[in-house]
Amino acid sequence: MLNFDFYSPTRIIFGKDTETQIGELLKPHAKKVLLHYGGGSIKKSGLYDKVITSLKAAGIEFAELGGVKPNPRLSLVHEGIDLCKRENVELILAVGGGSVIDSAKAIAMGVYYNGDVWELYGTANPIENALPIATILTIPAAGSEASPGTVISKEETEQKLPYGNNKLRPLLSIVNPELFFTLPKEQLGYGVADMISHVFERYFTNTTYTDLTDGLCEATIKTLIKNASIAYNDMENYDAWAELGFAGTVAHNDLIGMGREQDWACHDMEHELSAIYDVAHGAGLAVLTPGWMQYVYKDNINMFVQFAVNVMGVEGSFRDPDAIVLEGISRLRDFYAKIGLETTLSGIGINEEKLEVMAKKATKEAFGNERPLGGFKKLYWQDVLEIYKLVK
Amino acid sequence: MLNFDFYSPTRIIFGKDTETQIGELLKPHAKKVLLHYGGGSIKKSGLYDKVITSLKAAGIEFAELGGVKPNPRLSLVHEGIDLCKRENVELILAVGGGSVIDSAKAIAMGVYYNGDVWELYGTANPIENALPIATILTIPAAGSEASPGTVISKEETEQKLPYGNNKLRPLLSIVNPELFFTLPKEQLGYGVADMISHVFERYFTNTTYTDLTDGLCEATIKTLIKNASIAYNDMENYDAWAELGFAGTVAHNDLIGMGREQDWACHDMEHELSAIYDVAHGAGLAVLTPGWMQYVYKDNINMFVQFAVNVMGVEGSFRDPDAIVLEGISRLRDFYAKIGLETTLSGIGINEEKLEVMAKKATKEAFGNERPLGGFKKLYWQDVLEIYKLVK
Repeated sequence: MLNFDFYSPTRIIFGKDTETQIGELLKPHAKKVLLHYGGGSIKKSGLYDKVITSLKAAGIEFAELGGVKPNPRLSLVHEGIDLCKRENVELILAVGGGSVIDSAKAIAMGVYYNGDVWELYGTANPIENALPIATILTIPAAGSEASPGTVISKEETEQKLPYGNNKLRPLLSIVNPELFFTLPKEQLGYGVADMISHVFERYFTNTTYTDLTDGLCEATIKTLIKNASIAYNDMENYDAWAELGFAGTVAHNDLIGMGREQDWACHDMEHELSAIYDVAHGAGLAVLTPGWMQYVYKDNINMFVQFAVNVMGVEGSFRDPDAIVLEGISRLRDFYAKIGLETTLSGIGINEEKLEVMAKKATKEAFGNERPLGGFKKLYWQDVLEIYKLVK
Repeated sequence: MLNFDFYSPTRIIFGKDTETQIGELLKPHAKKVLLHYGGGSIKKSGLYDKVITSLKAAGIEFAELGGVKPNPRLSLVHEGIDLCKRENVELILAVGGGSVIDSAKAIAMGVYYNGDVWELYGTANPIENALPIATILTIPAAGSEASPGTVISKEETEQKLPYGNNKLRPLLSIVNPELFFTLPKEQLGYGVADMISHVFERYFTNTTYTDLTDGLCEATIKTLIKNASIAYNDMENYDAWAELGFAGTVAHNDLIGMGREQDWACHDMEHELSAIYDVAHGAGLAVLTPGWMQYVYKDNINMFVQFAVNVMGVEGSFRDPDAIVLEGISRLRDFYAKIGLETTLSGIGINEEKLEVMAKKATKEAFGNERPLGGFKKLYWQDVLEIYKLVK
């Protein structure tokens, strides 16, 4: 086990009707908030009205900024920063999924950052301060409700970059599984693929002596796989959504990744797909992850045997570990397909034209400064291209 | 899954040599601290000197209060409260195990409490404020390094009572597994029994749809069982102690107990043993827990089949679930014995004389106000007496 430093102070208020508490919960923290959200779905579902009612009842003023899109845009972040400064906003309330929360995080630090907040993305530079953030989660997926991370896209340059800082961990997050009942069915698959990937990025490691986090990762993935199938066939199943909602937070608050080298190559490779083709992050991950596994597993085959046996329930002769691993990967692909996900790039509308460009951007080779991806196995642009081709 | 509210803001700094960071870590939070510890072991091991050196290097002043005993005493807590007030202490640094940390928590809230801090114990009354607490853990056991709980004993009345409040969760805790190498061997067993019990108290439940926390609990118990045996036979095995140290925090910061009714009867029954006989908490738990299992399992046999199969690795015919459960309980007892723990009350020096008195105190029947113990199965004083007798 490696040395680690874990800090996850976000309070999680979980369960039925919890969104009606938002006003009372925020009262000790802010007199004026920015209500940040996406398209019209929270208005259609009635959530918007509930939030407004709760804020008003608690005497909390608010400014509003809707319009966050999937793969949230820098231009709206700039607008939010100006709005917060102009209106003396003290806290940002993000009502939505990962895109809305990530946009809120960018605004929260942008208010204090001296320069264009985009300069921070893709770096590990520190920040001095950020507005506090609260969230009401409308889809379990990105894990942003308790994570330090934010990912923003810059339209002009087709770049999608991450930034992380513990100061961006939300103060509190409300997770009510009932809010997930009305999600479009394909969003379930995208969300689950993202959550599972958050565990995979931590699980696949060369670090030795990681019993506890191995077990926690395996329990989280198995919970996601089991309950994704249930909810996919019964979109109003509270119990299944509750497991997915809780697992999504656990998958990404980093507890289960402590003390082990993490990977993150699949996320980096996927960001290029989303940046150029604007596909859903989870859709890209479901395509890339099994390809990545196929490409890297021989570097530490025992790690992948453990995955196949402990997570995917593969049985067989350990004298043929390749067969066990390949069966595990095959079952993962079958699972993705079962919850409506495509398993090839062409299935999500990506042809071969830009594979090389994306491989070179993902590794920064395109910018003359190649940084290989991945903690489990270092991937240079040629490796990334091979993986893209494996799943074309 | 039940609604829940989870909040665990303690920062965990984990790994080799981390105790040398204590001065720098505390610098932003306090100019003067109370250094609180137990007997002489931290002086013998050199930890005391390292802490002093680090505090001095960071320019932090300190007052000192040593002498915390296992089953920490109210009288020393009173002394600590007076000292903190007199010396204008801003933070309490607990260097030790659960007893020292629990004592620190009592002092931390006692400084602000208007009255005798003992009045809070055994209640769910709120508190206004508490001094911040930092810890350097010297034994993985109580989980107090990230929990809201504290247990204190009042000598005069032979009472041992708990209190919990999120304001008592430490600001930060340092966990360096190397500090555990010099523990007396029996302390390993006591600590492991306590940690496993913290998971059991959450795991055994009648709440349905708890896939994620079931899995997290099972992973944590399996990690503890596996690594306890390794460390018991090789007391300087860093990797095994690292698993135990991390698992101890996870076992009790309450993440793995969220959304499920918890039990806590074994802890309540054990507190009576410690209060009267001053036995180690873990020693009492190792005796009582299998007896409790035997007494209650028929109330929800499937929960115990799951335990026997998923945790203890029992195989066999599911058409004879009693046999599966009893084999699971038997393996648990064997495991306790393997790490040097007694499995009967007589083995820890407790005869039948006071069993009834303890049963009546545990359930408050002795105070004319009986409150049955346990969330899994309600236990009245007669039930508690039966369990004590089962393990005499």
